Amino acid sequence: MLRKRHFRKLPMPRHFVSAMLMRTKISELRGTTTMSAMNAFYAQSGGVTAVINTSACGVIQTARKYPKKIANVYAGRNGIIGALTEDMIDTNKESAATIAALMYTPGGAFGSARYKLKGIDENRAEYERLIEVFKAHDIGYFFYNGGNDSMDTALKVSQISKSMGFPVTCLGVPKTVDNDLPVTDNCPGFGSVAKYVAVSTQEAAMDVLSMAKTSTKVFVLEVMGRHAGWIAAAGGLAGKKPGDAPHIILFPEIPFQQRAFLKRVRECVEKYDYCVIVVSEGAAFANGKFLAEAGTRDAFGHAQLGGVAPVVANMVRENLGYKFHYAIADYLQRSARHIASDVDVKQAYAVGKAAVEFALRGKTAVMPVIKRVSDTPYRWKIESAALGRIANKEKMLPRRYITTDGFGITEAARRYLQPLIKGENYPPYINGLPKVAKLKNRPVKPKTGTQFVV
Amino acid sequence: MLRKRHFRKLPMPRHFVSAMLMRTKISELRGTTTMSAMNAFYAQSGGVTAVINTSACGVIQTARKYPKKIANVYAGRNGIIGALTEDMIDTNKESAATIAALMYTPGGAFGSARYKLKGIDENRAEYERLIEVFKAHDIGYFFYNGGNDSMDTALKVSQISKSMGFPVTCLGVPKTVDNDLPVTDNCPGFGSVAKYVAVSTQEAAMDVLSMAKTSTKVFVLEVMGRHAGWIAAAGGLAGKKPGDAPHIILFPEIPFQQRAFLKRVRECVEKYDYCVIVVSEGAAFANGKFLAEAGTRDAFGHAQLGGVAPVVANMVRENLGYKFHYAIADYLQRSARHIASDVDVKQAYAVGKAAVEFALRGKTAVMPVIKRVSDTPYRWKIESAALGRIANKEKMLPRRYITTDGFGITEAARRYLQPLIKGENYPPYINGLPKVAKLKNRPVKPKTGTQFVV
Repeated sequence: MLRKRHFRKLPMPRHFVSAMLMRTKISELRGTTTMSAMNAFYAQSGGVTAVINTSACGVIQTARKYPKKIANVYAGRNGIIGALTEDMIDTNKESAATIAALMYTPGGAFGSARYKLKGIDENRAEYERLIEVFKAHDIGYFFYNGGNDSMDTALKVSQISKSMGFPVTCLGVPKTVDNDLPVTDNCPGFGSVAKYVAVSTQEAAMDVLSMAKTSTKVFVLEVMGRHAGWIAAAGGLAGKKPGDAPHIILFPEIPFQQRAFLKRVRECVEKYDYCVIVVSEGAAFANGKFLAEAGTRDAFGHAQLGGVAPVVANMVRENLGYKFHYAIADYLQRSARHIASDVDVKQAYAVGKAAVEFALRGKTAVMPVIKRVSDTPYRWKIESAALGRIANKEKMLPRRYITTDGFGITEAARRYLQPLIKGENYPPYINGLPKVAKLKNRPVKPKTGTQFVV
Repeated sequence: MLRKRHFRKLPMPRHFVSAMLMRTKISELRGTTTMSAMNAFYAQSGGVTAVINTSACGVIQTARKYPKKIANVYAGRNGIIGALTEDMIDTNKESAATIAALMYTPGGAFGSARYKLKGIDENRAEYERLIEVFKAHDIGYFFYNGGNDSMDTALKVSQISKSMGFPVTCLGVPKTVDNDLPVTDNCPGFGSVAKYVAVSTQEAAMDVLSMAKTSTKVFVLEVMGRHAGWIAAAGGLAGKKPGDAPHIILFPEIPFQQRAFLKRVRECVEKYDYCVIVVSEGAAFANGKFLAEAGTRDAFGHAQLGGVAPVVANMVRENLGYKFHYAIADYLQRSARHIASDVDVKQAYAVGKAAVEFALRGKTAVMPVIKRVSDTPYRWKIESAALGRIANKEKMLPRRYITTDGFGITEAARRYLQPLIKGENYPPYINGLPKVAKLKNRPVKPKTGTQFVV
């Protein structure tokens, strides 16, 4: 009784009242009833994968479980550009069913971008603009779903936001078909492209073998992987015993030697009647020149590749005279949600979920990483790693994963790769085509009153 | 009583005894206990499909149900070449489980061949050799699984075998991804490649759209279809409403006009931010010249194509400057058993089964055809059609299936195509890869004592 009376009679301290008023005002602006919640900003970056939306699903579904802490997840339309131009998507406008459908929707649901923020000294204005937008929209969390360039951006935003007096909790969410992020055992997106490449190699090889007597003897499949041969290596899973396809894998890590290559092709055709070659788009000569350099460069300054398969195939025909065919999987491989790896889908979701959980536990400037607990049975868990350990670093295919002759994968590689393609995770279908999420993608009303041109 | 005594006491007629002896001898030779059964010869021809083995499964499983009529199914190793060279596979050596696994095994389980028998006047020796081998192995049934060239061969063998006094029951079993056989509503093999192309187009288009702001604006997918645009048309199923990808389909049936094409590409990019193009390998100029003619010809004398996608993509870049990517599906599309259409699998099995049943009902020189009973709900049945109506004829995509502007498919085309990609028919998986039949492919002991060089 005493305490109660005392409580009721004591005047409210002035600073408490003003804090209450301020919070009320913020919550009104937010259109929520939650008092202390901040908003989150989620953006997709770089080349999309079959499961990047699965990570988005993990982020948004998890955030929705903590409405007192995260009021809304705003998604960047076309990635980080959406933050710079204050063109954000209000994911609260999407139903639970639509968000759940992100689980099996390929592409980037909110748009992704090949846009790398420059160094702070070169373009401080971009970082200041980001913080301006974050401030205006009460964005206290930044989830950046991308590769090593993106982790660099997330790290810088974390540092700059602090120095600008508006500390933002910055979390990386790993994504890359290239599997080239360090620290994490593997990257979400890779398992599915690996499965696509292994399955396609197996299927096409059976086709070629059955026709080899009178038709195509050499088949070349071109796959992605600019600098790291992880995807090409995955093709090796199609073969289990000597003589099985693929007979030759051309890795970016192994300088291409025409004579040794042609010798092996001839040996294969003479011994097995056919030769299946998986070639990485990044296959290069000893001097570093790509077998097929298009000469154009993307926004990150990387050489844009494509068309190494015909180079290799024509080399075979000109020197050995064998009839050939080639396929270029290109975007089909990274968007092939229809043949996604179940392990990959589960991990893509887990890193999205973990990013939110880490953020709510006060962690910042970290990325959820996949830690392999055991190979057989395959077990994994999620841990966190500092962004500084990940940003701008590429993990190459270790030499011990490549056979001595440079044309195949070792048992160690198989042990690593095999679990990542395990399990099928089929999308639902309507009339023979995969069902996909249909998002409204309604814009968040701009608040800064200023424009920013990227 | 009287009848029984009479039976027991009557002497067996001489001709009956000799017939018994003869049949016993034949059955011993066959290694079977069936008295009046003949053997069957089954061969795969031309480019294989994701479901040609499903038809083989239908033939063999059905034949095994009638051991008193068909003692064994011999399969030609590398198609018809296996008959000419007396290199046949004893399918009775395969377990029921192995034959059942053909249901979901891509490629050609016994080997296929691009080998067309010439006209009788040009090469009578080949036909006489076939009959010699058939005679030596008691082969009374010939099941030829192929396209229109193969139906021509089956028809000729039926005629010549009769004129040579060893009439063979000849059945065609339809197969071609090109869907260009007449009479039948569609061809087994097409539904699955159509599903692959429609699914891949949808997936890749979502990828491209999500990146279009800063990256690729034009994506080109090259698909098969030498003279008929059925496969390219299937890509059109990915789009449902205006603005959906694919925005442009380039059919072999519509002469390519660069100006109209480039105009449409620009309109799409300006209106929808991106442009997805499905191009048939057979796309050609008004003068009949292929957009990408490799200059080489296959065993049937057809121009060997490949590489129209880069031609189209470079045309876009040079004239409009848009960033592009292209994929060449090549063999991946026709071997993609992992994304086979359920309707296709069922039909592929049904034509194999029906071929045996027709043969046992005394029909010859016919092919099971698929007759569409209704579009919605899709219903179909199997009928028989004379080989003469099918041999050497190509069914083109009707003009009414192509929109007036020549770049898309009409509602009539959708009504036709839609049911063919319906349903998923997934193979079983082991460790992340599709399980496939492992055949022994044991040879049948040669009996002619003569060699034949093809």
